[in-house]
Amino acid sequence: MSLIVQKFGGTSVANAERVMNVAKIVTDTFAKGNDVVVVVSAQGDFTDVLVDKQMEINPRASKREQDMLLAAGEQISIALLAMAIEKLGYHATSLLGWQAGFQTSSAHTNARIKRVDPSRIRAAIDRHNIVIVAGFQGLSRFGDVTTLGRGGSDTSAVAIAAAMHADLCQIYTDVEGVFTADPRKVPNARKLDEISYDEMLELATLGAQVLNNRSVEMAKKYNIELEVLSSLTHAPGTIVKERTKAMEKMLISGVAKDTEIARVSVTGVPNIPGIAFKMFSRLSKKDINVDIILQSIGHDGKKDISFTVAKNRGQDAVDALKDYMTDHGADEILLDTNVAKISIVGAGMESHAGVATKMFEALYDAQINIHMISTSEIKISVLINADDADKAVKAIHDKFFD
Amino acid sequence: MSLIVQKFGGTSVANAERVMNVAKIVTDTFAKGNDVVVVVSAQGDFTDVLVDKQMEINPRASKREQDMLLAAGEQISIALLAMAIEKLGYHATSLLGWQAGFQTSSAHTNARIKRVDPSRIRAAIDRHNIVIVAGFQGLSRFGDVTTLGRGGSDTSAVAIAAAMHADLCQIYTDVEGVFTADPRKVPNARKLDEISYDEMLELATLGAQVLNNRSVEMAKKYNIELEVLSSLTHAPGTIVKERTKAMEKMLISGVAKDTEIARVSVTGVPNIPGIAFKMFSRLSKKDINVDIILQSIGHDGKKDISFTVAKNRGQDAVDALKDYMTDHGADEILLDTNVAKISIVGAGMESHAGVATKMFEALYDAQINIHMISTSEIKISVLINADDADKAVKAIHDKFFD
Repeated sequence: MSLIVQKFGGTSVANAERVMNVAKIVTDTFAKGNDVVVVVSAQGDFTDVLVDKQMEINPRASKREQDMLLAAGEQISIALLAMAIEKLGYHATSLLGWQAGFQTSSAHTNARIKRVDPSRIRAAIDRHNIVIVAGFQGLSRFGDVTTLGRGGSDTSAVAIAAAMHADLCQIYTDVEGVFTADPRKVPNARKLDEISYDEMLELATLGAQVLNNRSVEMAKKYNIELEVLSSLTHAPGTIVKERTKAMEKMLISGVAKDTEIARVSVTGVPNIPGIAFKMFSRLSKKDINVDIILQSIGHDGKKDISFTVAKNRGQDAVDALKDYMTDHGADEILLDTNVAKISIVGAGMESHAGVATKMFEALYDAQINIHMISTSEIKISVLINADDADKAVKAIHDKFFD
Repeated sequence: MSLIVQKFGGTSVANAERVMNVAKIVTDTFAKGNDVVVVVSAQGDFTDVLVDKQMEINPRASKREQDMLLAAGEQISIALLAMAIEKLGYHATSLLGWQAGFQTSSAHTNARIKRVDPSRIRAAIDRHNIVIVAGFQGLSRFGDVTTLGRGGSDTSAVAIAAAMHADLCQIYTDVEGVFTADPRKVPNARKLDEISYDEMLELATLGAQVLNNRSVEMAKKYNIELEVLSSLTHAPGTIVKERTKAMEKMLISGVAKDTEIARVSVTGVPNIPGIAFKMFSRLSKKDINVDIILQSIGHDGKKDISFTVAKNRGQDAVDALKDYMTDHGADEILLDTNVAKISIVGAGMESHAGVATKMFEALYDAQINIHMISTSEIKISVLINADDADKAVKAIHDKFFD
């Protein structure tokens, strides 16, 4: 007998029929002799309905009240799923975040899980109940309802799996697993059977929005085996776990695209010590995260510094550096939002030479110009024009997988 | 400085505009130097939306899960009202039933309030916050979310007023107060300035659905002054309080109609001791509440017994008595659902003779036949044909108030 945590996102419980479908998956797992804890998100677009209600009344409402409002969404889902499970003849107990023992920081709308006390979950399991937990929410030490921010339900599921030493944590979604590229764009993209935590982290960061990063980090920390799979097909998904020898035989595990970025270039910066530090400290003061950084080789006592930021922070970055220009005498600041970052990720990269060369060759063959390059142990990223993004993904994918 | 509890029903917070209207009333009260605790119900027909969601999935879901589902409705309302109050520049704190200290029995969907611990409410008031509490809900000793059943938000408001020794508990609704008759049916019905708890209890029981009975009983027990008033007009409403001399000058305070009843008649019952007891014990075993009872004067060793029950229990009552007929030898059981109970209520009745005569005269003038009569210290009820109900109310009202 195993303890399995299953997480279902909003689309999986969007209407009565889908809720019944989830109840079927859950009870099938239970009927095989497993203990089951289910984590669900709010139904379909219900969170948007609630946000619309807020916007009509007060777009600048306090974050505490935003959390109070949004947490109602999962409350509805867990009750409906419990009812659907009862309908199939099983005992079910729904628990809100605070009832399930989720203690969080008090950073409303983006709280961090501090501790999960699963005693109520365990007590319900001991009474042979299937337990349904509201994802995305918890309670601060002040007794206020909090939410975990984007992808919070994934994190809730992994946190329960960690606290209860679950044997498996299944993340049900609307795709069949993790693919070597976006299957909507690259027809011959393949589903991976396995992927390591590190590769998954790189892919998540790079815009393959299958799993939330915080949840993968937590799974890695507590060594929880994840499975990403579809709630609609009954096919096995992709297992995310510690790197194995078998994985290293594959050169790369995926090609990812991120178009939500912008490039900022500051030209004619004086080539003196500390000049880059001063630039990036101004950005971090404004909470602007910088990704790829490129610095030109200086000549005539001047150099150019380029970096990428999230697209929606592009203008903020330019504004934050206006005084810098005046203070330190740069020539100009350029903002380019029409760029895309294409990355390949693979645990095998470390031990195989020529991966970068193969990627650049693919881009050259497709006549795509590279603006910036960045590498890590298991990742190579290039910055190109946004218009070339899909073509680039396909070209690289074909090069490695055909 | 006073402590005022204000309760707003679902229609008062049905949309963004109405929520802002309620926020205006609340903040006006606060700005006059009062501490304010607000109790709200779920928005408009949102409870129906949730019930529909349940019905699609499992009409026979457990009551625990029904409570979990329904409690989400008030959670949305309190957050939205808090946001609206913030929008007007005031500090607001919304609290769920359990956060506001509502400890209830574990009778899901119809829980009783056992205790209110208002320490969190008081702490928020001390921080100069307007506190918004989710009505209708609490927490059982097992830590499960409960709901209080019909009219539960009124009871929530009075319970807070009692626990905090509030100076006034205002129940905002869609009518301007308590009227001498239904103003939609009787154009010259008058709004009462004051009414006693006992009269209000009789009127509530009799179908003038302004205030929930449990809330009036609790207000009487803890001597909480209630005001029933409209959230749309700014007119003073009706004060419900201990009986005063002034009230007794008025002969009657209202005429009420109840068409949700049925009459059951059992004819030819043997006229021997214990025969009525045996009849009504069978009904109480089935949880059927009997209201008016009429027993004919026996002759030839036989008598007839008639009684009224809620319309939706009429057939149950007949079924419960089928064996009784066989066991004790009655002639037949008749069920009449086409009846109405018309009642007059008045604290002055006790000290004024001729009230009943005046009522019967009004019905005689209108040529309305009386089937049954029932009286208490401050109430006289008659059973008539349902078709005559509105005519009867008008005739009696005209007789007493014109």
